[in-house]
Formats: sequence, structure tokens, C-alpha cells
Amino acid sequence: MSARELHLNAFLMGVGHHEAAWRHPRTDPGALDDVAHFQNLARIAERGTFDSVFLADSVQVWGDVRHTAAGRFEPLTLLTALAQATDHIGLIATASTGFSEPYNLARQFSSLDHISGGRAGWNIVTTAQDRSAQNFGREVNTGHAERYQRAAEFLDVVTSLWDSWEDDALVVDQEAGVFADDAKVHEIGHRGRFFSVRGPLNAVRSPQGHPLLVQAGSSEDGKAFAAAWAEAVFTAQQTHDEATAFYADLKRRAEAVGRPADGIKVLPGIVPILGGTEAEARSLAAELDSLIVPARAVRQLTDLIGVDLAGHPLDERLPPLPPVSHVNGAKSRFELVRDLAERERLTLRQLLGRLGGGRGHQVVAGTPEQIADHVELWFTTGAADGFNVMAPLLPSGLEDFVDHVVPLLRARGLFRTEYGGRTLREHYGLPRPVSRYSAITV
Amino acid sequence: MSARELHLNAFLMGVGHHEAAWRHPRTDPGALDDVAHFQNLARIAERGTFDSVFLADSVQVWGDVRHTAAGRFEPLTLLTALAQATDHIGLIATASTGFSEPYNLARQFSSLDHISGGRAGWNIVTTAQDRSAQNFGREVNTGHAERYQRAAEFLDVVTSLWDSWEDDALVVDQEAGVFADDAKVHEIGHRGRFFSVRGPLNAVRSPQGHPLLVQAGSSEDGKAFAAAWAEAVFTAQQTHDEATAFYADLKRRAEAVGRPADGIKVLPGIVPILGGTEAEARSLAAELDSLIVPARAVRQLTDLIGVDLAGHPLDERLPPLPPVSHVNGAKSRFELVRDLAERERLTLRQLLGRLGGGRGHQVVAGTPEQIADHVELWFTTGAADGFNVMAPLLPSGLEDFVDHVVPLLRARGLFRTEYGGRTLREHYGLPRPVSRYSAITV
Repeated sequence: MSARELHLNAFLMGVGHHEAAWRHPRTDPGALDDVAHFQNLARIAERGTFDSVFLADSVQVWGDVRHTAAGRFEPLTLLTALAQATDHIGLIATASTGFSEPYNLARQFSSLDHISGGRAGWNIVTTAQDRSAQNFGREVNTGHAERYQRAAEFLDVVTSLWDSWEDDALVVDQEAGVFADDAKVHEIGHRGRFFSVRGPLNAVRSPQGHPLLVQAGSSEDGKAFAAAWAEAVFTAQQTHDEATAFYADLKRRAEAVGRPADGIKVLPGIVPILGGTEAEARSLAAELDSLIVPARAVRQLTDLIGVDLAGHPLDERLPPLPPVSHVNGAKSRFELVRDLAERERLTLRQLLGRLGGGRGHQVVAGTPEQIADHVELWFTTGAADGFNVMAPLLPSGLEDFVDHVVPLLRARGLFRTEYGGRTLREHYGLPRPVSRYSAITV
Repeated sequence: MSARELHLNAFLMGVGHHEAAWRHPRTDPGALDDVAHFQNLARIAERGTFDSVFLADSVQVWGDVRHTAAGRFEPLTLLTALAQATDHIGLIATASTGFSEPYNLARQFSSLDHISGGRAGWNIVTTAQDRSAQNFGREVNTGHAERYQRAAEFLDVVTSLWDSWEDDALVVDQEAGVFADDAKVHEIGHRGRFFSVRGPLNAVRSPQGHPLLVQAGSSEDGKAFAAAWAEAVFTAQQTHDEATAFYADLKRRAEAVGRPADGIKVLPGIVPILGGTEAEARSLAAELDSLIVPARAVRQLTDLIGVDLAGHPLDERLPPLPPVSHVNGAKSRFELVRDLAERERLTLRQLLGRLGGGRGHQVVAGTPEQIADHVELWFTTGAADGFNVMAPLLPSGLEDFVDHVVPLLRARGLFRTEYGGRTLREHYGLPRPVSRYSAITV
């Protein structure tokens, strides 16, 4: 195995990432309400020695209720249930810095880290949508820059709380009645623009010190935030050129703020549509796209890019879009959609098909060898440290990947055959942070 | 079995409810970091056909860090792990209305209810302490009355969100591509003093419709809130007279707002200190009290009643306390402590001993027969619908209760021998609420 190790994350999404997955005969929509389904997915990924599983999240009803497979589970609770069904695999939950209190989120991630023996990760999102803000007392969401300013302060508070009990704070002397060395338990005394938090956290330091910090924003603000905080980045590039540029840029930004380039892992999303032959794979892709309900897809695209396309004719090209500086949503996703539509001169209907598989992530249809070639190429040529695997159908698409692609990656010496470490940080080859308070007293 | 059924809740608290439990040779403080310990407790309670297990919570470091057994786990995540280890028993988590957003809490409880197949309950607290508020941006907590006003609005929002998907909203027609009937998915459009929430919740209605609503406040505001919202009340009365008065008052208040008296179950806390003989039990109680560290207990009492007792001599009686109207803390707990100290003319040291076992809940030391007699008396004479069992040592105290007291209660026809229902509501004999939106359209 090469010194540099490939990393794989299994992005779990209901019965599949394709927006019409629930309509396909290879899925069971009843599984959406079944914890055992998700536990099965986590076990499949663990059989494939994936680094982690990941659950996205939002704080609003998303898209068109009529045509969208609705969820039941909230990530932190569901991942706790997955922790009980697995032994090694990392567990990454999305949570927004926009609508929670840092004390509460710090505790819940610390708790998941304790419960799972050091396997918790947090995918940090700032949440762009007004519709989300309307569930939290505001008609209109705050601006893009301010959301990232709040996120940065949020992270400062949360990591301080995670550090507030030093690793050796516990004494547990039954005879003397001393449980903890109070000199090693710290108020954080944070007073900032968005938050004032006294601390300490009411939980001792967790196995990883800090649960793994993951992020996905790719705007200027997003990349600056990632460079400062993220240890793994889920990203969405459609082409190798875009991916290598993003990869190099992010590593450079990390180094510019004093972090090692390999301290931040870049994992583009990939929707692998697998077939025994390329024709078989393409046929499955076409079959899935034929199940898309256009009205639903238009509404989801509207939510995604923040431009109302409800009245636009399906077989015409997109209307002129506003400059990205006017967009208060997910800027990088907006640019991706705009560039894709312009580059390939797509009609709205064609664009919906291209987005239906992976909501902007690259869809690769082919044989296991072709998928493995793609992974190897991107991994070995500066485009990726690994992949965020978004199976179009679940569980079958993940099973296919684990049974047919992972063995090829292992045979090529690219991917582990068993877990070498115990914690999520160890899987990603990342160090356990020292408490900032320990650092001061040394 | 009598028509009226006894209910038992196992209040899980680290390695025991006695504040010095972690120092006793029958406990293992290492268990505090062990999910398997808590899963074992839940299984023991389930073996005893308890209605539920319960986890308290706070959002601050509590008491004296040096002498207090520190926790690791947050209730919603830990209960999710307990759900995986049990099949029947209810799972009740404390969460505060003071420092969370209703949309977030509604989702997490809904998720636990889905994950556990209808076993979730929410112990609603308003959180009195300034120290808690200081972890959430405020130097001083809001006033008692306002906290309950916020709680009432919080409950209105949360239950509306739980109702926002009608039970029959799901269509799941794969052929037609229709997942849900959007006419049965409702925005809640809440605009109130504390919250504005558009809705709907991004989770379909959970097995119980509403997770069970539990509450513990016993002030005037607290009782009014309980009468309006609570389905089970954890309470702390020291004497049979106080208990029957509280019981009758609460049932009357519920009826006054149009609810049936048996729609609200009253469960006083009891710390059962069990021995083969009464002398053995009293000896265990004395042994536990001897392990209390006074400095720690004084600080906890200070936090509990909001009056600083740090400089007060241990062997003198309490200083004059302010009138309860000046207290912005847990008013009923304040009155309980004041009344206990005055009634029995206790010195501070004696008071600490009395409180160390159950933080104000009654401590009953005796044989299994004596404990069963006590339970039967209170249950059959209008003092209780059941008990919140607070074992002084865990797991041993809970095991003793299940192995020696429960069989007596069963033999007397007071308590179930097996679970008759599937959900927590069914255990407590409470109906599943109809969605308020279904009620409108019928």
C-alpha cells in the first residue's frame, strides 16, 4: 500500500441518492422508517472498510412534499443507533451552526463520540435557505458572509468546550472523595459577537478530543472556513480540471494558515451507477432518470440555487441567471449548476436529469473496473484524497460498490483491507488534538 | 389485577442517586463512561416490567466539579443507545425549553420515537439557574413566570410540529410517483411572543403521535403547566399528607382545564435503600451518608435553592431564608428544603445528609416488604399513581428492587407481570393523540 491512503465515505440517503430511487423496483420505500435498514447500510460500509458513513440534514421540508421521499430520522440520534450496530466505522452527522446553540451541539457530538468509542464526526453547514430561517423566527436568512462569521465563532466556542476538561482531569479517588482535579476543568469565558458562553462543558473530554470536523462549502467564504477548520471536505466537482484546481487551492489555503496540507482531506462526491457492462450501467442511469417527476425536480432546483424556475418551459434552456454575488444561497452549488447548464447547453429538462442522480455531484456510470479507474485516476493525480460515495440505490448500490469496486481498489494497493485504527481520526490519518488548556499549562 | 395500574419509572443516574454512590465499594466509577452499564440498567428495569427509564439533564456543570461524579452522555443520544438494547421499556429524556429551538427538539424527540418504535418521552424542564443561562449568552436567567410562559408556547409549537404530518399523509405510490398527499402535510404558521415557526416538521408523524409529555415542576406556575400539558409528573413529596394534597390538587387542576383525572399520572420519587433486615438497610444508609463530602454538598444545595450557604457553619441550623417569592429557582424544591429543615430543626450537616440520598426526594430504608408496603399504601390511598424509583447505588440498588420488591408488588396484584402494550403511552394507559389537523378536516 502506498504511504498515502485512499479514504472512502458512504453517504447514506434514504433508499438511494437518485431523487427517484424510492420509485425503482430495487428499493423498498418502507425501509425509510426502518432503523435496521440504516444499520444494514452501515454494516455493508464497514464490511468494505469505509472510513465513515455520513448523514446529511436540513431544518426544513425540502423540495416538493408530494413527490419527495420523506425522512423520519435526525442524524445524531440515528448515528447513535448505527454505533450500536457497528464496531469500527466513523459516524458523521450534519448539523447547522445557524440554528443551534454551541453548548448543545458540543454536548451532543461529545456524547456520540463517547458512545461510539471515538467515531463521531460533524459536517458543519451554515444553512442558506430562507425557508429554514422561517422555522427559527426569521423571515429571511442572514447573509452569506455573516453566516460564515457566525460559523467561525461557533467553532471556536465548540472546540473550547470540548477542550474544557483536560484529558487528565479525572482523578476518581474513591477513598479521598476526589473525582476530578478542578484545576484541569476550565471555564472558557467566551464573549464574542454572536455568543457568550461561560463553560465548562458538562461532559468530560471525549475519546477523539474533538470529533472530526467536516465541511462542504466551496464558496470563497466556505473555502476560507475549510482552510481554518475542516479536516475533511465533501465537495462537488464535475470535471478533473475543476477538481485538481479545487484540491490544490484548498491545500494551499490550509498551509497559508499554518496547517499541514495532509491535515485536510478532500473527498469529491461520486454517484457510481454500476453495471456488469457499460451499456447495462447506462441503461440503469436512464431508467432512473425516467422516473424523475419534473415538477418536483424544478422545485428542488429552485431551492438549491435560490432562483425560481417554476414557470420556465422544460424544453428551453435556463433563463439568464443573476450574478453569483446576488445569491445568498449555496454559492458554489449555484455556480456549478450555471456552469454545467452553459457548458453543455442543457435545457431545463436535461439539466434536471443531470442533477437528479447526485444533486450536482458527478455521476459515473460504468463497470466496476471503470469506476475503480476513475477513483484511481483522481486519487493519484491530485484531484482527491478519497471519495464521498453516493449510491444511487440503497442498499443495492452500496453493496455493488463494496463487493465489486472495493476489491479492485484493494488489489491495486490503494485501499485498506482491514481497519488499522480505532477512531474516526485514526481512519483518516489525523492526529488527536491536544486540549488548548493543556497546551497552556505545559 | 385492579383496574387501576401501578406505574414504575427507573430514574437512571450514573452509578447511583446517592451523591456519594461513586465512592461506595458496590459501585464502579468506570461505569460512568460505559454505554453497556446504562444498557444493563435499562435491561434490568425491563426485566422488572418498568414502564420507563428516565435520564435527567442540565446544561451546566452542576455542583462542585472536584467532588461530583462527572457525566459523559447527553440524554437523547444515550436513550437511542438504550433503545437498541431493549424492546419494550419507555425512554424518557429531560430537555429544557429555555435554551433550545422548538424545531430542533421536536425533531429529535420524533426521531427517538421512530427509532424506538414509539417509546420516547420528554421530561420538560424550564431551567432555573443563572449558571445555565451563562452558557447561552445571558448573565442572569429569565424570571420564573416568563420561563413557564415560554415553555407553554414551546409546547404549543412542538406538538403542532408533531401533528404537521397527518397519520395518513403518506401515499407511497411508486407507479404514480406520489410519496405524500400534500393536503395532509401542514405548515403550522406559528407567530407568538417567543417563537415564529412556519413548519411543517421535516419528519413524518411518529408512532406515538406525540412522545409522552412528562414534567416535574411543583410551583404554582409548574402545576398550572402540568395541568395543561403533562401526562406524567415526577414529584418530590416527603410525607403522605403532602403527597395526597399534591395528588388531589393536580388531578383537580387537570379536570378544571377539561382533561380526565387519569390522563395525568403522578409519580413521587423514592430512594429505596434495601436490606435483608431494617437494620441492614439503615446501616447502608448511614454508610452512604458518611461518604458525603460536606463542601460539595453545600455547593450543590446552594445551586439547588439559590441561596449561598458556603460560609455557614455545618453544625448550626440554616440562616433565615428569603420568602419564596424572591426565589427565581426551583420554587417547590426551595420550599421542600426549607420545610424539611424547619420541621425537623436540622443543622446544615443534618440537612445535607437528608438530601444526599435523593436531592429532596423521600429516602425509604427498609426490607423489601417495607418498601412494598410503602408503595402499596401511597398507591391505594390517593398519594401516587406509581413511583419514580431512584436507586441509591447502580446497578445493585435497581437489581435489588427488581428482584425483591417487584415480585411482591406483582404477588399483591398491583403491578404487571408482562408488558401489555407496545408503546410508552400504552404502558401508562394513555391514548395516542389525534393530529390537530386531522381533527379539523374530519
